[in-house]
Amino acid sequence: MGIEIERKFLVTSDAWRDAAHRVVPMAQGYLNDLAVVQSGAQNASVRVRIEGDVAFLNIKSRELGASRQEFELPLPVDDAHALLALCVGGRVEKRRHLVHHGGHLWEVDEFLGDNAGLVVAEIELDAADAPFARPDWLGAEVTEHSRYYNLALAAHPFRDWSASERG
Amino acid sequence: MGIEIERKFLVTSDAWRDAAHRVVPMAQGYLNDLAVVQSGAQNASVRVRIEGDVAFLNIKSRELGASRQEFELPLPVDDAHALLALCVGGRVEKRRHLVHHGGHLWEVDEFLGDNAGLVVAEIELDAADAPFARPDWLGAEVTEHSRYYNLALAAHPFRDWSASERG
Repeated sequence: MGIEIERKFLVTSDAWRDAAHRVVPMAQGYLNDLAVVQSGAQNASVRVRIEGDVAFLNIKSRELGASRQEFELPLPVDDAHALLALCVGGRVEKRRHLVHHGGHLWEVDEFLGDNAGLVVAEIELDAADAPFARPDWLGAEVTEHSRYYNLALAAHPFRDWSASERG
Repeated sequence: MGIEIERKFLVTSDAWRDAAHRVVPMAQGYLNDLAVVQSGAQNASVRVRIEGDVAFLNIKSRELGASRQEFELPLPVDDAHALLALCVGGRVEKRRHLVHHGGHLWEVDEFLGDNAGLVVAEIELDAADAPFARPDWLGAEVTEHSRYYNLALAAHPFRDWSASERG
């Protein structure tokens, strides 16, 4: 089994758009109130996820010790859109642009809605220190900053970030 | 479109067992706390349902005025059993016996767990007053008694019924 390392960066310009060869609309949300799962009153979270023309329902058990169960059910995209409208938490929408550069595939996520204005670029590497060619438009690394996680962006969207959080 | 009327009865003996030609293990439960959906803090309920060798996830939106959305996703039975273990509400298990009598198919539900001891027989008819042959083992009709509904049996199981409720 391979281990994949994901590194995440800000972008400093729109220059990546010229090299983008495909865009995938993505959206996710949770049918359940996330606080209810965290409180232990419920044992599983139910996420709706749309990636272009496919969609999934993801069910994750609350972490109990080291064990956690995950289930993924394919979902018709029309149903997924209807379910997304019923979601009460974790709602994030973005356009994922695929950009080839220097032999690597970058995923440039352009967020929408309450996170509009935020753009981050991700690269998957075989090791944390694997070399890669830096595109001109690449900015500071934010891999370790949890405020860029999907769930964090749903709870505290980019619209509400302070100047220092926007870095 | 046909309209189906379901009538529900108690049974007075075990004589139906001799005529039962098939048994289907059934189970259901809800991943979410039902009170959360009823309170309006959540917009949809997620039910896990196993019927013999098939299983489904049923998502229902909270009723808003006259409109309600329903989604049914097929689920591997193994996943369904694992998900049932994560359920926090509406958990009911029973064995459904199929019994032919007088040209009609009876479903005799033998409940398990907290509802062990309860057995009810259901028949589907084309009209509420459609004639049917009464088997010897058929008891009083309970069609209109809401305490026999699955959700009611989950919240207030047969084990906790008073003598008059068992009546």
